[in-house]
Amino acid sequence: MREPARPLRLGMVGGGRDAFIGSVHRTAARLDNTFVLVAGALSSTPEKALASAEDLGLARGYASWEAMLEGEAALRPSERIEAVSIVTPNHMHYPVAKAFAQAGFHVICDKPLVHTREQAAELTRIVAETGIVFGVTYNYSGYPMVKEARRLVADGVIGKVRKAIVEYNQGWLATRLEASGENKQSEWRTDPARSGSGGAIGDIGSHAENLVATITGLELEAVCAELTTFVEGRRLDDDANLLLRFKGGARGILTASQIEVGEENDLRIRVYGETGSLTWHQEDPNRLVHKTLEGPTQLLTRGNGYLGSAAAAASRLPAGHPEAFLEAFANVYAGIADAIHGDPNADYPTVVDGARGVAFIETTVESANSDRKWTPFRFPDS
Amino acid sequence: MREPARPLRLGMVGGGRDAFIGSVHRTAARLDNTFVLVAGALSSTPEKALASAEDLGLARGYASWEAMLEGEAALRPSERIEAVSIVTPNHMHYPVAKAFAQAGFHVICDKPLVHTREQAAELTRIVAETGIVFGVTYNYSGYPMVKEARRLVADGVIGKVRKAIVEYNQGWLATRLEASGENKQSEWRTDPARSGSGGAIGDIGSHAENLVATITGLELEAVCAELTTFVEGRRLDDDANLLLRFKGGARGILTASQIEVGEENDLRIRVYGETGSLTWHQEDPNRLVHKTLEGPTQLLTRGNGYLGSAAAAASRLPAGHPEAFLEAFANVYAGIADAIHGDPNADYPTVVDGARGVAFIETTVESANSDRKWTPFRFPDS
Amino acid sequence: MREPARPLRLGMVGGGRDAFIGSVHRTAARLDNTFVLVAGALSSTPEKALASAEDLGLARGYASWEAMLEGEAALRPSERIEAVSIVTPNHMHYPVAKAFAQAGFHVICDKPLVHTREQAAELTRIVAETGIVFGVTYNYSGYPMVKEARRLVADGVIGKVRKAIVEYNQGWLATRLEASGENKQSEWRTDPARSGSGGAIGDIGSHAENLVATITGLELEAVCAELTTFVEGRRLDDDANLLLRFKGGARGILTASQIEVGEENDLRIRVYGETGSLTWHQEDPNRLVHKTLEGPTQLLTRGNGYLGSAAAAASRLPAGHPEAFLEAFANVYAGIADAIHGDPNADYPTVVDGARGVAFIETTVESANSDRKWTPFRFPDS
Amino acid sequence: MREPARPLRLGMVGGGRDAFIGSVHRTAARLDNTFVLVAGALSSTPEKALASAEDLGLARGYASWEAMLEGEAALRPSERIEAVSIVTPNHMHYPVAKAFAQAGFHVICDKPLVHTREQAAELTRIVAETGIVFGVTYNYSGYPMVKEARRLVADGVIGKVRKAIVEYNQGWLATRLEASGENKQSEWRTDPARSGSGGAIGDIGSHAENLVATITGLELEAVCAELTTFVEGRRLDDDANLLLRFKGGARGILTASQIEVGEENDLRIRVYGETGSLTWHQEDPNRLVHKTLEGPTQLLTRGNGYLGSAAAAASRLPAGHPEAFLEAFANVYAGIADAIHGDPNADYPTVVDGARGVAFIETTVESANSDRKWTPFRFPDS
Repeated sequence: MREPARPLRLGMVGGGRDAFIGSVHRTAARLDNTFVLVAGALSSTPEKALASAEDLGLARGYASWEAMLEGEAALRPSERIEAVSIVTPNHMHYPVAKAFAQAGFHVICDKPLVHTREQAAELTRIVAETGIVFGVTYNYSGYPMVKEARRLVADGVIGKVRKAIVEYNQGWLATRLEASGENKQSEWRTDPARSGSGGAIGDIGSHAENLVATITGLELEAVCAELTTFVEGRRLDDDANLLLRFKGGARGILTASQIEVGEENDLRIRVYGETGSLTWHQEDPNRLVHKTLEGPTQLLTRGNGYLGSAAAAASRLPAGHPEAFLEAFANVYAGIADAIHGDPNADYPTVVDGARGVAFIETTVESANSDRKWTPFRFPDS
Repeated sequence: MREPARPLRLGMVGGGRDAFIGSVHRTAARLDNTFVLVAGALSSTPEKALASAEDLGLARGYASWEAMLEGEAALRPSERIEAVSIVTPNHMHYPVAKAFAQAGFHVICDKPLVHTREQAAELTRIVAETGIVFGVTYNYSGYPMVKEARRLVADGVIGKVRKAIVEYNQGWLATRLEASGENKQSEWRTDPARSGSGGAIGDIGSHAENLVATITGLELEAVCAELTTFVEGRRLDDDANLLLRFKGGARGILTASQIEVGEENDLRIRVYGETGSLTWHQEDPNRLVHKTLEGPTQLLTRGNGYLGSAAAAASRLPAGHPEAFLEAFANVYAGIADAIHGDPNADYPTVVDGARGVAFIETTVESANSDRKWTPFRFPDS
Repeated sequence: MREPARPLRLGMVGGGRDAFIGSVHRTAARLDNTFVLVAGALSSTPEKALASAEDLGLARGYASWEAMLEGEAALRPSERIEAVSIVTPNHMHYPVAKAFAQAGFHVICDKPLVHTREQAAELTRIVAETGIVFGVTYNYSGYPMVKEARRLVADGVIGKVRKAIVEYNQGWLATRLEASGENKQSEWRTDPARSGSGGAIGDIGSHAENLVATITGLELEAVCAELTTFVEGRRLDDDANLLLRFKGGARGILTASQIEVGEENDLRIRVYGETGSLTWHQEDPNRLVHKTLEGPTQLLTRGNGYLGSAAAAASRLPAGHPEAFLEAFANVYAGIADAIHGDPNADYPTVVDGARGVAFIETTVESANSDRKWTPFRFPDS
Repeated sequence: MREPARPLRLGMVGGGRDAFIGSVHRTAARLDNTFVLVAGALSSTPEKALASAEDLGLARGYASWEAMLEGEAALRPSERIEAVSIVTPNHMHYPVAKAFAQAGFHVICDKPLVHTREQAAELTRIVAETGIVFGVTYNYSGYPMVKEARRLVADGVIGKVRKAIVEYNQGWLATRLEASGENKQSEWRTDPARSGSGGAIGDIGSHAENLVATITGLELEAVCAELTTFVEGRRLDDDANLLLRFKGGARGILTASQIEVGEENDLRIRVYGETGSLTWHQEDPNRLVHKTLEGPTQLLTRGNGYLGSAAAAASRLPAGHPEAFLEAFANVYAGIADAIHGDPNADYPTVVDGARGVAFIETTVESANSDRKWTPFRFPDS
């Protein structure tokens, strides 16, 4: 297990009282001791920001992200934060990330990266210019068995990929939860001003896109999308169904839904190659199913010696001692820490992955509004 | 268990030596003693037809279906076959079914019913005129838990249906099996002259269409299809991916593939309503998963007292004593026998179901050749 | 698929109206056309015996088994039954089997074979003397994947067997069902006069014993048993837990219970060898799990080319088209038919298997009444 | 999620370089920020102890546990460690725990607690006298769904418990790994001097005992045990099979094995009551199966509103976002932290649970050496 003697100093924007995902990021950062949280501007409401920092016993609580940027920049390099983690609603990703990146801080940003291709391109440009590390928390890419699936495809174990089916099935928005006044998660996620142009497709469809890209390495050529809003009064899609065409001839299906009653967090993928196939389910994450043309089905489980190096490096425990969501999330933080420490092979989702996700959301919305069957996927812009 | 004192007299067209599906039909017919096979024209090759009849110890073997039609018609009503089962490759369904139906025999026909909407309409017309019973062996509709799913939807247990995902995943045609010279199944199924205009979409996509229609009762409004032929040299699609629009606003996904390496006969369906959802898998057929908005997931299993009457009537064994493919197939035969015996509530797939399946295949092929996103589903023709 | 031109003529004793298992046997006999039922003494109540025969359209209905024995013996060899199937409550197995065997009829008898070791020895002797075929319907041994497990052990694929865990978990007798007056199954099964000295251990523990013996080929050396009656007023055990010692040093656990609420028919076995292990569950019978020292877990599924010849011969359908309880039961009937037809390699449970099962029940009851930890298993008597 | 502003100061004995479990404890302590590791005597080899402390960037590294005890005791209360975590091989638990407890430090000790009943009684006495908090890391008791199972039993949801089957199946010692010279885990675990009188029964059987006691609340009355050493040259049992009698009439089976090839860390339990049953598997820990007399099987999953307060308090993430081994382990640490903070309802395994586990191991070994069927379970000594 990874237990560095000195964790990196981390600041956080967003993630105060009532915010679920902030705690997830903090736990992921702390789990392997890769980061230590020392500063935070944890809410857009100054009082709440300060109170939340006090709740957590933070060394330096700030009333706003601008104050944090100014305050940290004024500290000596040996004291100031080395990276900032941005866990606000989506609409704040762009300004905060841009400002911290331009100031030379490493950035960890939640997904989807930003609202538009233009914003994403701008961040990508800044990252290239400044040389900072910029990680996007596509946390599911941190699962060891996802890394193993990626390796098996890359090594040709299932042959040329013909087809991928990726699904993200949820049911928590099957009713109009955002109107209850008691669920902040649902409020901003169904609000275009904060969430962006995509509802389910942005919130979870982007994870599905990242998963299929991570594992297969395939590049999208065109999409055929239908976005539906089933719950009356909702302003964004809560169900997305897509046919996919990849460059080189592979085909795909992507579905992302938040109205599938009873589904919890059922992200799953199947990849079919010419000589084998792979299946992985997020709710049963320690297992990867490998099927072949002739022999019995193989169940690969995390922690075994037959797995590749990336899966091994992302594991803490022996086989049969399950690791799960937080550990995978911590792997993303660990990969970003590796990059900050200068490891050229650091394994984490970059700003380019984030930008591609934004292009995917925009292309999907464009397709959903079109009568043409296929809408080309443009990324990067050319 | 159903064990009638007198089985109905059955004749069979097709299903001789080397034909897999003939034996399945005979077993299904015999399993509950609902039918007894007394006559057959089991091959299009006269010698093989006669030899096959002898293999089976058939009372009356014929060299051709025309000979059988003539021979049986000449017998006294108390001796002649009461129904004919047509288990030939698809292209022979139409002429044989038409001739026997016009002669007043009840007909059991494999799916897909025929090659074209026009043929289907003609058969439908003949059935209406003659009053014969005409069953189409959409065998998966015979599973008790499929009947239970149908009941739960009809009773409103999951609320108004919003979305259905139906899949038929197979991998047996991932390589060019039809070129091996050793697999008759693959030969005619990939030959447009015998199979019709659809490959995977006709062979198994039609089962998926029937399953979603049977369970949900939804009517298709339009489809958006992509058909792909992955295996070089193959003349029909081996992979089909569709977005579905149903009348009333429900959405769907249908995939049918025969190139998904390692998948055996993975027909599965999920139906999402406003207040609940249902999941069923053909390879684990004794179980139905019912999820709800609030409570724990429910696993319903065949043979229990909490199931509805249709599921109960379709079961032979107590819970935990699994029933499977042949029993479901036998349920279709039993439903047809009920209809022949005059039961107005007999439960089996009719010529109308078969005709709808043909319209589905044709619409899908039309959509696959179109640049429009949505191709309207016309059925019945108007 | 097996479809003989001429089925063997079968008679049945027991299995009339209200008797569940009779119908199972008849279906198993008919499914592959290996037998045709032509005569029956279907109840110990003459009127019911005759009415039941009429229900089934039997050619020859008898008022008693003695009448059937006499009547059939009087027929010409080409007409009389070739085998008798005994599906009565246990206490009638011995006299009926003995009489038919002595008269030279082949016998198919339900399990447990008889009440005592002495009766079993007597039947074994008669079978040896007369040369008849005598099959005992340990139906679970008919599953293809049980045959495959047997093969893998015999071929040394998992190395020398060290341990076996076999369970038969049911819950249907968790309440005093036999006092309801509405469940004949439970009435005779909990009545020592009809069921024998074992309750759960006799009814289902005997299946567990047969399964472990069939798959591993191990011979019992001693047992340490606890039998419990949980339901007040019940006269036989409804829960049995045993430690097992096999000859050669292997160890085992056997549990058989009918009070495990919610368990349906959960017969399962795990066999651990020096280099591999096997797991099989009756409720998911088309799958066999094979684990090894180093590699991924292997899921073997029925219908694939990598299986051995016994599993292949016991299958009717391709992979993914599940076969289940009735098909396995039919395989036992088919094996007996093979033996009657003279096949020296016919694969079915014999009178010796049945006698061993009786010895197992008696040894278990003896152990349960003893303070010694280990009670030696004597079989055959010496 | 639990994120205290101030973590408790923790010291650690054992867990240096090459020691697997130390890192698990540190991660569990850190995951929720309930503890911060500030001191350590991480190895019995002084140089390694100091080097290991440096690896981890520990504030205060000590060469021996005695030095740590002395050094910490000399610090001001606001600086010194508040608790010590003992993660050495078993034989060191007793002296270290005794010394720190007597000095007034709270103690967290790995399982099995100590080697003998007498040692356990002595520690229990010291805890009572000093009033310190003493937690034993039966980590599996920390799983939310184990807490839910405990609640359902306590609330009478499954009625009076009749039977429990608890298993801990592993295969990693199927070969003589301890002779490879490359696996420290296996070396001390198979060495009686360090591991104690039990091999598999002590290492993992003790977890099984704790699990069944935690969930059911039943007290053991007597055991009937067989301990086997399958691997030649090994000095402790590697396979344990027990029949259990609980006070009040319930029955049980316990198996703990480390030679079951291919089993990873398969701890599982089934509890059967008069009106319901529960099943939980450690390798699929977010799910609890609840079966009833009449209705469908219920799948309860972590994170849902229908669960009880203990399960809810032990969860960090919404349903479908799996939590696993480290999170459960962290829950044990969190419970101990609660107790240190004075919470009278703190939920964690105490020294009494640890002492009962020792009595269980000793009773089992005694039974295994006895020809009597039942060996009484004495605890506490009277």
